[in-house]
Amino acid sequence: MRSPTSLSRRILVPPGFRFAGIAAGIKAGAGLDLGLVEAPQGATAAALFTSNRIRAAPLQVGEEHLESSGGRVRAVIVNSGNANCSTRTGRRVCQLICERLAKRLGAIPRQVFPSSTGVIGVELPAGRILQALPRLLEARGDGLASVQHFARAIMTTDTRPKLAAVRFRCGKGTATLLGVAKGAGMIHPRLRPSGYGGQATMLVYLFSDVVATPAQLQRHLHAAAARTFNCISVDGDTSTNDTVLLLASGTGGLRLGASGAEQHFAAALEAVCSSLAEQIVADGEGVRHVVRLRVEGAGSEAEAERVARAIARSPLVKTAWAGGDPNWGRILAAIGASGVPVDPERIEVFLGKQQVCRRGAACRFDEWEAHRCLRRPRFDVKVRLGQGRAVATFLTCDLTTDYVRLNTHYRS
Amino acid sequence: MRSPTSLSRRILVPPGFRFAGIAAGIKAGAGLDLGLVEAPQGATAAALFTSNRIRAAPLQVGEEHLESSGGRVRAVIVNSGNANCSTRTGRRVCQLICERLAKRLGAIPRQVFPSSTGVIGVELPAGRILQALPRLLEARGDGLASVQHFARAIMTTDTRPKLAAVRFRCGKGTATLLGVAKGAGMIHPRLRPSGYGGQATMLVYLFSDVVATPAQLQRHLHAAAARTFNCISVDGDTSTNDTVLLLASGTGGLRLGASGAEQHFAAALEAVCSSLAEQIVADGEGVRHVVRLRVEGAGSEAEAERVARAIARSPLVKTAWAGGDPNWGRILAAIGASGVPVDPERIEVFLGKQQVCRRGAACRFDEWEAHRCLRRPRFDVKVRLGQGRAVATFLTCDLTTDYVRLNTHYRS
Repeated sequence: MRSPTSLSRRILVPPGFRFAGIAAGIKAGAGLDLGLVEAPQGATAAALFTSNRIRAAPLQVGEEHLESSGGRVRAVIVNSGNANCSTRTGRRVCQLICERLAKRLGAIPRQVFPSSTGVIGVELPAGRILQALPRLLEARGDGLASVQHFARAIMTTDTRPKLAAVRFRCGKGTATLLGVAKGAGMIHPRLRPSGYGGQATMLVYLFSDVVATPAQLQRHLHAAAARTFNCISVDGDTSTNDTVLLLASGTGGLRLGASGAEQHFAAALEAVCSSLAEQIVADGEGVRHVVRLRVEGAGSEAEAERVARAIARSPLVKTAWAGGDPNWGRILAAIGASGVPVDPERIEVFLGKQQVCRRGAACRFDEWEAHRCLRRPRFDVKVRLGQGRAVATFLTCDLTTDYVRLNTHYRS
Repeated sequence: MRSPTSLSRRILVPPGFRFAGIAAGIKAGAGLDLGLVEAPQGATAAALFTSNRIRAAPLQVGEEHLESSGGRVRAVIVNSGNANCSTRTGRRVCQLICERLAKRLGAIPRQVFPSSTGVIGVELPAGRILQALPRLLEARGDGLASVQHFARAIMTTDTRPKLAAVRFRCGKGTATLLGVAKGAGMIHPRLRPSGYGGQATMLVYLFSDVVATPAQLQRHLHAAAARTFNCISVDGDTSTNDTVLLLASGTGGLRLGASGAEQHFAAALEAVCSSLAEQIVADGEGVRHVVRLRVEGAGSEAEAERVARAIARSPLVKTAWAGGDPNWGRILAAIGASGVPVDPERIEVFLGKQQVCRRGAACRFDEWEAHRCLRRPRFDVKVRLGQGRAVATFLTCDLTTDYVRLNTHYRS
């Protein structure tokens, strides 16, 4: 058994869930675009949603369902190819889909959790989803192949499915945690808890067999997301559809209340979320370089985060990274424009292990070595503000012509 | 004589100024990179500078000079190819250049106003500038050709010089106003008055022959910039070097205190600033479409501006514009993520004259007509928030692969 924070090399499927993914004709082309997760015995649930003021219909319905069901979920239904956001019929068709699926499962509609991702402002072709329900249910399975189908069905501009799993032992019990995610563009999540607790969009589903209350799950999910999904950015655009859902089937027998279990679970959850967050950035639209950005010495955590977000959103910083250009002046300009009252003469910047800016000014460095560092697929950028002790770590990426090309021709 | 708010078809040079632009070897290649404006009889002055917390040495020195001289300027010296920002020797060499130039002009150093634009964090090759001073002074002239040389010498990634002029009559007096600017990238100005009052960077110089006090100039400049330069964005990155300088030689005889003169001057200034702002966006790095963005019905002007800036900075909105894609859902997502507490169900969006979103949802529109509208080099996007009466107008542009290409290879 690996240590609780290490990811499993194999993708492990926790008991108590069945998965499916089929093609329902929502996406252009014939790709998989309708996914289902069923918890035949039900599951406890917690969720986080985007803080974008425009929220797609499934987020509104999903939040209401969690509230009215007291955090119980029987099934999750996800379509890609359409965000079901800012449409006239959005809520109505979303509720209809939940009702019809619930009926077929012998469940109640408020125990169905819906998600959508894709283009905003186009009516959801709900008829195709309703028609596809029998095929979707037939496709259910609890093996890895079924999980893979689900993972592919929720993809939009993603080039590969995103999965991570951990199994851990605690006392006599064993628990499994599996995460499935999609990302690609419009990735700059700012998640907030729901009452219980895009376009391209971040969708994350986490499944475990632990026994846990919705409140326990919500607390853990909030903590894990704050250190993972809320610290990534692909393009600085926060989606209308970002959703993170954590389900616990309780079939594994390990109680979250048991001695030491919470700690193990928290570590496992953070490991899985961290891996999925990294996979989302690495597979972001047009991404060639993943940048581990660390802001140290800020006056507060909020200021550290604000500086990190400003750097991660600067087109000039991101295009320099695309070219392996150690142009740290652009990083300084982004820091200065962040709105945080920094003292320019205290700022230090490191590219990889090399310091390139000392006390806010150029210092001698090996430009060729810096260029080599920035050409690696993953590299570190560190900023010291010299004002306090607060730190933020952020995972971001470069901005390439491929990103622009992809999004110039998204719909047309 | 044209009405005071109409631009002159010809570029008019106000009396009391001499211009020069030469190649001093600061830029790579042999382009013009050192500019001079001299006011032989001196001029009154007002300036606005970037609100970026990182400010290049010439902005610090220029602001101090204006303060200590009581708003008097004898000469302006500008180099392109190097921002003289975040360098060890920055202030020292900037002051040295001002001293040497002042000595040659028989002026005092605090009456020299310096500017720089180009790469950040690289020591300014001040020796080349000092060596070039005799040639620079020899090149002075008061004709249009000299103005053109100056306009070219301050360019970085600009593809063309930016000029605008107005001549207006008031009572028996006549006055001329000439503006010269450069822009291209790192254009998202947030100017603030100095005590008196990059990389690529916005630099704007405005020259008039009116008789005016520094305080009068500052008031007018602040008002004009608030409606023009502070309402444009190319890439959302605010420069460390943005500078707007207004000089009045007083040689024309028209006093700003005379009856009606202030009103005429204000209109002329806004016309010139507005034209230069438009030229800066139109010649922004990689720009193919200029977008006139109007946000109506906001709860306050600050909220209207915040929504406009959020739309103007969204990579997904800007790439959709690059492709002529009427994907208004991306505009909604940007509004929702702006931090302004909008009511999604009141938002309306217009592309050109066509409404594409009503009460926050898709409405029927002619997609082909919308596509045609967005393929024009200039088009209008209007957003109604339905919350109040405040309005913001903003000038912005698309994000193209050319922008990314230019900035991926800026230095390397």
